Amino acid sequence: MIDLRSDTVTKPTPEMRQAAFDAVVGDDVYQEDPTIIELEELSAQKLGKEAAMFVPSGTQGNQIAVLTHCQPGQEIILEADSHIFIYEGASISALAGVQPRTISGKNGAMDPGEVQAAVRGDDIHLPETGLICLENTHNRAGGAVVSLDNMRAIFEMAQQQNIPVHLDGARLFNAAVATGNDVKEFAAYTDTVQFCLSKGLGAPVGSIIAGSSAFIKKARKWRKRLGGGLRQAGIIAAPGLVALRTMVDRLAEDHENAQLLADGLKEVSGLIIENNVDTNIVLVNTEDAGLRAEQFIEMLKESGILAVPFGPNTVRFVTHFDVSEEEIRSVIESVGALVGTNR
Amino acid sequence: MIDLRSDTVTKPTPEMRQAAFDAVVGDDVYQEDPTIIELEELSAQKLGKEAAMFVPSGTQGNQIAVLTHCQPGQEIILEADSHIFIYEGASISALAGVQPRTISGKNGAMDPGEVQAAVRGDDIHLPETGLICLENTHNRAGGAVVSLDNMRAIFEMAQQQNIPVHLDGARLFNAAVATGNDVKEFAAYTDTVQFCLSKGLGAPVGSIIAGSSAFIKKARKWRKRLGGGLRQAGIIAAPGLVALRTMVDRLAEDHENAQLLADGLKEVSGLIIENNVDTNIVLVNTEDAGLRAEQFIEMLKESGILAVPFGPNTVRFVTHFDVSEEEIRSVIESVGALVGTNR
Amino acid sequence: MIDLRSDTVTKPTPEMRQAAFDAVVGDDVYQEDPTIIELEELSAQKLGKEAAMFVPSGTQGNQIAVLTHCQPGQEIILEADSHIFIYEGASISALAGVQPRTISGKNGAMDPGEVQAAVRGDDIHLPETGLICLENTHNRAGGAVVSLDNMRAIFEMAQQQNIPVHLDGARLFNAAVATGNDVKEFAAYTDTVQFCLSKGLGAPVGSIIAGSSAFIKKARKWRKRLGGGLRQAGIIAAPGLVALRTMVDRLAEDHENAQLLADGLKEVSGLIIENNVDTNIVLVNTEDAGLRAEQFIEMLKESGILAVPFGPNTVRFVTHFDVSEEEIRSVIESVGALVGTNR
Amino acid sequence: MIDLRSDTVTKPTPEMRQAAFDAVVGDDVYQEDPTIIELEELSAQKLGKEAAMFVPSGTQGNQIAVLTHCQPGQEIILEADSHIFIYEGASISALAGVQPRTISGKNGAMDPGEVQAAVRGDDIHLPETGLICLENTHNRAGGAVVSLDNMRAIFEMAQQQNIPVHLDGARLFNAAVATGNDVKEFAAYTDTVQFCLSKGLGAPVGSIIAGSSAFIKKARKWRKRLGGGLRQAGIIAAPGLVALRTMVDRLAEDHENAQLLADGLKEVSGLIIENNVDTNIVLVNTEDAGLRAEQFIEMLKESGILAVPFGPNTVRFVTHFDVSEEEIRSVIESVGALVGTNR
Repeated sequence: MIDLRSDTVTKPTPEMRQAAFDAVVGDDVYQEDPTIIELEELSAQKLGKEAAMFVPSGTQGNQIAVLTHCQPGQEIILEADSHIFIYEGASISALAGVQPRTISGKNGAMDPGEVQAAVRGDDIHLPETGLICLENTHNRAGGAVVSLDNMRAIFEMAQQQNIPVHLDGARLFNAAVATGNDVKEFAAYTDTVQFCLSKGLGAPVGSIIAGSSAFIKKARKWRKRLGGGLRQAGIIAAPGLVALRTMVDRLAEDHENAQLLADGLKEVSGLIIENNVDTNIVLVNTEDAGLRAEQFIEMLKESGILAVPFGPNTVRFVTHFDVSEEEIRSVIESVGALVGTNR
Repeated sequence: MIDLRSDTVTKPTPEMRQAAFDAVVGDDVYQEDPTIIELEELSAQKLGKEAAMFVPSGTQGNQIAVLTHCQPGQEIILEADSHIFIYEGASISALAGVQPRTISGKNGAMDPGEVQAAVRGDDIHLPETGLICLENTHNRAGGAVVSLDNMRAIFEMAQQQNIPVHLDGARLFNAAVATGNDVKEFAAYTDTVQFCLSKGLGAPVGSIIAGSSAFIKKARKWRKRLGGGLRQAGIIAAPGLVALRTMVDRLAEDHENAQLLADGLKEVSGLIIENNVDTNIVLVNTEDAGLRAEQFIEMLKESGILAVPFGPNTVRFVTHFDVSEEEIRSVIESVGALVGTNR
Repeated sequence: MIDLRSDTVTKPTPEMRQAAFDAVVGDDVYQEDPTIIELEELSAQKLGKEAAMFVPSGTQGNQIAVLTHCQPGQEIILEADSHIFIYEGASISALAGVQPRTISGKNGAMDPGEVQAAVRGDDIHLPETGLICLENTHNRAGGAVVSLDNMRAIFEMAQQQNIPVHLDGARLFNAAVATGNDVKEFAAYTDTVQFCLSKGLGAPVGSIIAGSSAFIKKARKWRKRLGGGLRQAGIIAAPGLVALRTMVDRLAEDHENAQLLADGLKEVSGLIIENNVDTNIVLVNTEDAGLRAEQFIEMLKESGILAVPFGPNTVRFVTHFDVSEEEIRSVIESVGALVGTNR
Repeated sequence: MIDLRSDTVTKPTPEMRQAAFDAVVGDDVYQEDPTIIELEELSAQKLGKEAAMFVPSGTQGNQIAVLTHCQPGQEIILEADSHIFIYEGASISALAGVQPRTISGKNGAMDPGEVQAAVRGDDIHLPETGLICLENTHNRAGGAVVSLDNMRAIFEMAQQQNIPVHLDGARLFNAAVATGNDVKEFAAYTDTVQFCLSKGLGAPVGSIIAGSSAFIKKARKWRKRLGGGLRQAGIIAAPGLVALRTMVDRLAEDHENAQLLADGLKEVSGLIIENNVDTNIVLVNTEDAGLRAEQFIEMLKESGILAVPFGPNTVRFVTHFDVSEEEIRSVIESVGALVGTNR
């Protein structure tokens, strides 16, 4: 099987497994796991933030950010197709009691003027705006990079109104590698950042949330409440350290493979590439090929290729460490044959 | 002052005051207030529902509907400019833990196909769709009537998927009077309905929520939790009964006055009427007159006219029982003079 | 029927009805109802607080206090048999997300040392203590007065730890009348107070919550979220003003009647008075009479007397404005006959 | 350092590390991690339940149980000193919106009659009872085993009233080993069970929650909402499998060491053993030795011994895999010397 469903499917490397085997551990609920501490310090440093905290998943990192920044009855502004709004089971409302106010972005980027207009004034009928959430790279926009300019404009407006900004940077390192900017440059336009160790970076489990020391102190209690306080967590922090230290630069290969895939598939009659392929995601529209997404995915599966639906006629392919250039070429070939047959 | 801010400002009539004075009362928490019982039975009957319950406000009626229909972590579909989403302080998320999924409607009506597309499938990442909320007439769409056809299409789709439909019918009687349809006809395409006694119908306080007997039984406990269980509530139910029995047909006058106002104001150079004036609301755009909404409102106030802002350059006027045709004519005259002066 | 179920069943007096008839009203959501404003100012002044706000019920007043003082994940300390814990449908947890930590009091009063011991320290596993709630008079302790000394001891401890104190003073005026202390003296040992206009004071509907101006400003938004923002609320504030101005002193009669009732019933063989009859509540234990509470209540009902169960073998009687001394004497007589018959 | 603070501090064994190194993994969010599946199936089988699910912590397992069983506004009955009430940051209220109703148990066991009496009747003022939670062994009762008889009595009562029963069995295997009963026998008197792999069983991370298939299906979505859905979780499931297969029987050694410790410390003048040492926990009262818990802990620390405070004059010692009989003997010796010196 060539698994292009998500970069979350990457398996830990032998080096990561060895790191888990060798990890010096302690009880992280007591903040005594040296490997966790090392990972948190390295992460904070890379992002240019005062402090960081390990969490078991990106979803938990995002939810802790909302719980820590906001109070019930507030509203948060975020992109209409963002992961927090679409894929986190309405947790921002279920757990934190906040109402999402969505803005449809362009390639994942919200217009700063529209964000400003969506901030609520002071009136008895209105919720206060408690948080603005950004996503970079933006998953449903096909791994699009949100520009530093866009982030700066939103952050400066937010700061003037004392509204915190959280970045869902599950794939922030992809944005950094694609643009040549350091992750610090992106993080500079945020109050808090979440990034995943377990997507393109290949670690088996875990994410990081970073911000001010005061924020992280408060966030630790919310992590405990959500059941994210682990014991000898060094066993998963150790592969995370390997990921952070050795797997960042190679994301460029995933981006090249995605571009290769897009270039190949757009030559297949009936298929249209929906997104700018900024990073490691390719969104393919199958409508002109007379195929619904589910049908296409079924056909692919029979040919040993896995992808996921992203709309009635849209299929998402994600490149990652466990898929080689050669496999990408074979995917293009298979798809060409399949869609040809269909027509 | 000619107060066109809202039909909520209507003062109780002498007949209503007399009814309050004479009201036979009991303790409604024990369900022993005869006047409340009479009002609830009459309301249920008028809407064609099994049961109804008095609540102190329309907001509480809507919130009880969401709390009773939904569970935390669900999503509700509603129009992007609906009262529940815009003006209820994010309570659906703060109290009920549900996430709003908004659809931009046309004249207050959501496209049934878009509603259908917004229903969530069964996947571990996704919230279930727990409720669809409609609003008729639609306040921010300028008192627009949502058609029976539109309501039927959404309700039939919802029924097929076992999703309940709630109607925020704060001004449902305006829709009925404007179209000549009975409120029952609208209520037929809903599971639950909330309507206000205290807007155009002129009662001092209160709203009604109606639905199945099972729903109302469950709703009573949520009303108690929100602190809406009152004692000798007959004192406010009595004016509500007067409103329901004697004030419905006369809403037609408010609609005529609104039409008169719109016809007059559209002749004022620089003012544009934004909405179809289906009922008792007129939305005036002041941009071409070189005025921001706040400025225009300030000018009006100095001339003894009250209205509210509804956007940077939009001002809302609402006609009601306490404003006569003559006063409307004087408003038109004043506005003509004011805007002329400004230019 | 002689209705001794609760002092909530009192019907509005002719003077109150006349006040409702004559009330000058406005739209209280815009804070423009003069009668509401008058009631709020008088209430604040009587309690010695900066500001006050009308709410439709005591439950809503208490819930708004919790929502305004606390954040989700905090703990509140309150008496194990308090109204907020026992009779408000778990709203403190459902709406405000706070956990009750109960302490069993003596005659409704918690031991200050036990309260102090229940305050949580700073540890990742523990909720912060966000509020202490008192109740005076204490309903389930049989209308017991909590002493000023007890309130002061708890308040001083709380202040030292920056924990706010809220008083559920639904029947605070009973405590004042019974002890000869001004309500201000009790309110001095609190941050916020709720009291009911609709119990012994006889108003048909409504309660007051009072505290600092900053607290009340924040509380207004929570009232709106709970659907407690009313329109021409003066119609119910007017009777409330009558209650506050004319009905306080006469609570002494209710207390005398309760004492009379207790003195009479304790002579009935098999009945035991469980409480010190400080105010207007009498708790009668029926166990030695071989009766369960429900049985006894059924027998009373057949003799035209209403009371409520307060435990398997406990029945609560509440005296109030609508029950005369003569009726109390007839109750004693009837009960004597009934229990005699039973034995 | 001899670390007797908790059995959570156990470090993974070489065999566990090897298992992590060798683990066959997949993406558990897609339910494709073979090692997780194996662990979940083995756990369900051991408990005699239809299905089981891996969670990152015991706290998350308990919270998911409450979220899945209950609805906001319900009440749950649990022991006044239970972990869920004392040490989970008020999450049951913050996340699930339920109110705890606590009962003081004897050696961790609630009286079934008191539980029955705490179940709420059907009344508009009262929350419904949504869940009963048990804890076995009971941490704050000093690792006390709750008897099968006690569990059966509560479970049978609960079943008659359709109230589910959840067991916080963080240390359930200790109860099984101590009594010679199979964990299945305990689990038979529950609807759902949570047990920890990371306490006495020595795994680095993780817990299991088990119940009906329908329950686990619903629970998976709540796990995702809390951010407990992990990716290549097999890396931590593999050590968990080792724990479950090889570490259960040896809990008997911890129990012997705890008994040894208790026997030794009770000979030290001024120290009193507070609990029946059923399993691996010893609670030492230091009051008669003139020591506060914090002082005693500080003295121990200087002698290379770690323990935790469990009250003003109570210190908890927990024996586990990483502490040998020899170390226990040295602890007894040190304590004797320390307390002697102090006096």
